[in-house]
Amino acid sequence: MNDLRSESEIMSLIDRWARAVHVGDIEGVLLDHADDIVMFDVPPPDAGVRGLARYRATWLPFFEWQAGGAVFEPVETTVTAGADVAFAFLLLRCGTPEELARVPDRRLRLTLGFRRVDGRWQVTHEHHSFALAQEADDEHA
Amino acid sequence: MNDLRSESEIMSLIDRWARAVHVGDIEGVLLDHADDIVMFDVPPPDAGVRGLARYRATWLPFFEWQAGGAVFEPVETTVTAGADVAFAFLLLRCGTPEELARVPDRRLRLTLGFRRVDGRWQVTHEHHSFALAQEADDEHA
Repeated sequence: MNDLRSESEIMSLIDRWARAVHVGDIEGVLLDHADDIVMFDVPPPDAGVRGLARYRATWLPFFEWQAGGAVFEPVETTVTAGADVAFAFLLLRCGTPEELARVPDRRLRLTLGFRRVDGRWQVTHEHHSFALAQEADDEHA
Repeated sequence: MNDLRSESEIMSLIDRWARAVHVGDIEGVLLDHADDIVMFDVPPPDAGVRGLARYRATWLPFFEWQAGGAVFEPVETTVTAGADVAFAFLLLRCGTPEELARVPDRRLRLTLGFRRVDGRWQVTHEHHSFALAQEADDEHA
């Protein structure tokens, strides 16, 4: 059973964060993130982006790309929350209008990990990916 | 702070599961997985593989590929565990000997979500990906 208060807090945090991403508000994006965040991003490094300063740096080119009209819009969010640890997985529409017109069902997949520290939830892990159609047979059928 | 007993249980579960994957033991792979598992796999579907039967089906072609000499070997595992909810993220060597010789630092990134039901941990979510070097500028710079 989910801890309902935690679930509600995590849902609010994700809403707030996704809105900050969409409007390019870097301080809002970082507000609830841990200093030791490890992000597995769509591009390299393979071993993950480690620490808040490097995490911050990944968003600036994303915001430039997004300023051309791209969207970052959650369409499904599933939260599993205990008293002090939680995770969530999301599907998002993420692309330029042209990309989304060409492949309307394409989704960015996002998993988030959280822990509560001194009463406050922090994001300690993110994993972003797109499904990899072409290489599927070679890599990980 | 991690719940140390939970952390130890989750570490054991992951070790057991990764060994089952590596030897192609499908019942071992499924042993601790929830009926409503949602997996974001390397290949499509974008929206995830949903339910244990579909999850099971994804492993059979992987085992065929692996039987040609490929490895599935965790090299780093980080667990965050509460009393009843936990998540983990891993880096793995996953590829054929030829692939791993060509790109030795390439890593499969894996995030796992867990909940404890009736005293027993279950995997309810998996997210597998490779970093996407070529498309980085187009997709999610």
